[in-house]
Amino acid sequence: MMDMMDITTVWEDLVWDNGGKIVYLILDGVGGLKDRDRGGTALQVAHTPNLDEIAKNSSCGLLEIVGPGITPGSGPGHLSLFGYDPLKYRIGRGVLSALGIDFDLQTGDVAARVNFATRDTEGNISDRRAGRIETDLNRHLCDKINEKVSLDFEGKFFFKTVSEHRAVFVLRGDGLNDKLPDTDPQNIGVPPIEPKATSEDSKKTADLVRKFIDRVNAVLADEQPANTILMRGFERYEHLPKLRDRFRLNAVCIADYPMYRGVSRLVGMDVLPHPGGMKQRFETLQSCYGDDYNFYFLHVKHSDSEGEDEDFDGKVDVLEAVDRLIPKITDLNPDVLVVSADHSTPAVMGRHSWHPVPAMIQAETARVDDVSRFDEYSCGQGLLGLRPGTHLMGLALAHAGRLQKFGA
Amino acid sequence: MMDMMDITTVWEDLVWDNGGKIVYLILDGVGGLKDRDRGGTALQVAHTPNLDEIAKNSSCGLLEIVGPGITPGSGPGHLSLFGYDPLKYRIGRGVLSALGIDFDLQTGDVAARVNFATRDTEGNISDRRAGRIETDLNRHLCDKINEKVSLDFEGKFFFKTVSEHRAVFVLRGDGLNDKLPDTDPQNIGVPPIEPKATSEDSKKTADLVRKFIDRVNAVLADEQPANTILMRGFERYEHLPKLRDRFRLNAVCIADYPMYRGVSRLVGMDVLPHPGGMKQRFETLQSCYGDDYNFYFLHVKHSDSEGEDEDFDGKVDVLEAVDRLIPKITDLNPDVLVVSADHSTPAVMGRHSWHPVPAMIQAETARVDDVSRFDEYSCGQGLLGLRPGTHLMGLALAHAGRLQKFGA
Repeated sequence: MMDMMDITTVWEDLVWDNGGKIVYLILDGVGGLKDRDRGGTALQVAHTPNLDEIAKNSSCGLLEIVGPGITPGSGPGHLSLFGYDPLKYRIGRGVLSALGIDFDLQTGDVAARVNFATRDTEGNISDRRAGRIETDLNRHLCDKINEKVSLDFEGKFFFKTVSEHRAVFVLRGDGLNDKLPDTDPQNIGVPPIEPKATSEDSKKTADLVRKFIDRVNAVLADEQPANTILMRGFERYEHLPKLRDRFRLNAVCIADYPMYRGVSRLVGMDVLPHPGGMKQRFETLQSCYGDDYNFYFLHVKHSDSEGEDEDFDGKVDVLEAVDRLIPKITDLNPDVLVVSADHSTPAVMGRHSWHPVPAMIQAETARVDDVSRFDEYSCGQGLLGLRPGTHLMGLALAHAGRLQKFGA
Repeated sequence: MMDMMDITTVWEDLVWDNGGKIVYLILDGVGGLKDRDRGGTALQVAHTPNLDEIAKNSSCGLLEIVGPGITPGSGPGHLSLFGYDPLKYRIGRGVLSALGIDFDLQTGDVAARVNFATRDTEGNISDRRAGRIETDLNRHLCDKINEKVSLDFEGKFFFKTVSEHRAVFVLRGDGLNDKLPDTDPQNIGVPPIEPKATSEDSKKTADLVRKFIDRVNAVLADEQPANTILMRGFERYEHLPKLRDRFRLNAVCIADYPMYRGVSRLVGMDVLPHPGGMKQRFETLQSCYGDDYNFYFLHVKHSDSEGEDEDFDGKVDVLEAVDRLIPKITDLNPDVLVVSADHSTPAVMGRHSWHPVPAMIQAETARVDDVSRFDEYSCGQGLLGLRPGTHLMGLALAHAGRLQKFGA
């Protein structure tokens, strides 16, 4: 290890209150690989005249979001784009899940992801997802647990539905710690794992978790198939510095999916009510664009989902649908328009990948390069080059006139 | 300022036991400069249809092995390729030479390279290599030294033939230290340099070395031309973490030259018996390819040697010979095939250089770029971009499916 400057902290010293507005259009998982039958990546195959027009007026490049060979989860991917080095700011599923259901996490809370599960008469797990129960049943079970289970300590717990078999558990109180193993054995035919403390200072938390699970088991004893719960990703919530304090950005998030709303809240964005659809998100941007904010994060989920579903054509369709909505952004004439992604999700792989994502920055102050198409290959020829994802925020701030000169 | 993460340690947290096999074909010193008369680099001039075919199916780029402007020695060069930052893991010729003769170095041993040399009647060095004596004579002299020289201390010494005029000296015992200067004056007509301690804690070692050299001089007094020895590169051996422990790689080294066998042993590779020739090395890869290993390091030495000999055409010939052997690798259809180098050795310079080396990664999961030739200029247009040499291992692991997602 060595002492090196985190470049994102240098921007903190250079920002001022002048400068223009920044719009981030994040096409989740947009990077891809070539499909042999289709002769290109989804971005290459898609007909995207509006995105290409932006490319023609932009500096383009490729972003390696977390690091070489590293496949970003959605949380770290977005942190990187927002100028938070994900190797420094570690957040996991526990915290993100809680934030994603609009839960107001407080510093020191310990959150974990929960699955309703099925255990057999011998106490072994027979289904880690309890047959993916309906969300309604999940709500009913959560109500029952909240009503009947109590923990006798100076703090409190929260137990909340996410969807289907997924829920979130949060412990709030003094001296809590997240150093305990998942109780989810990640396997069937075996019992859950004991929530044993892995350090002296997590004994209190482990004890509370054990009691909680025992009491839940009693309450759910007669339920089928969801007669137990499994927990994983215990995580203590640490306060992250806010975009306002770091970069003087009044930022707003326009997203429908919990994860992205959660990570936005984490960095201090205002999170607007669910727009309820892609077109609605673009329209929400139009209606909120004005003096209240200088940073707008508009999230498109389905470019990732179609990639995960290995649906190349579906991904192409999403990209073309996005393209048709682009004028809703460009009509606003933002000072800086960034189009990029939090990670690649090649449809030929069906999962997130480490491959760099294309990025473009359109601004009056951009050194416009010769790239005329928004895709992985064209952007690879752009003047921004291949660089870490965390660089994007500094470049956006600079292009918006928000960074002062360094030194005399 | 903050403690920045060494990205190679992040991979350690993400590796799992799944994934495919990785083959590293390392063409030592393959990077070059253009020869004005020949109109290109050796790689550009060489007819290499098989390497070019790999390029057409690969992600290509350039690797800066140690850092900008830094000319790598062979040891650091290979460490970088294996995912060990050479600025963090410092090893020198002393240790590598000992490892290269299959010597079982133990933590705390101090090793040095030795030359048999000639000194004149006034005690000045007249030939730093004793006329490059035959290896047989070297062995005879080593036997004589081992038989007749003794050092009275609680530890012991080893004195071993490498080849020609080269030998290795190892001191083993408590409290040894490597802070002493080379005794080799790197010049003739001058006496050897005194092995003076450069710090308090190297006094014991310096004293032992001085006594040893004095006694060797007495034993060799009547020999010609090898009547003395010169030592350089004193180095205390520190244990390096193994590839198995860091990246869950069961790795095997197929190489003929001591240095490369040594560095491979250092990172925990199995080192196969000397194949005894380039074709034999490729065939050894074929015969050992299977379930025992998931990482295969195949080393080609002569691309470097010809460069050092300023033999441009010789280097071209080596590359064409390598190219003819490529099917022996591609027939195995490895999940990930990496072709790269540990440093450049331009024939027009006749020595190692700092110029980045071409690299290509062929895999099902590679974002195949438009590069169609394996050379320094073509790879400079590839999608891997220009990046540190240490990145290569992470990329290889990722392409083999050996790295899990980072965060949720």
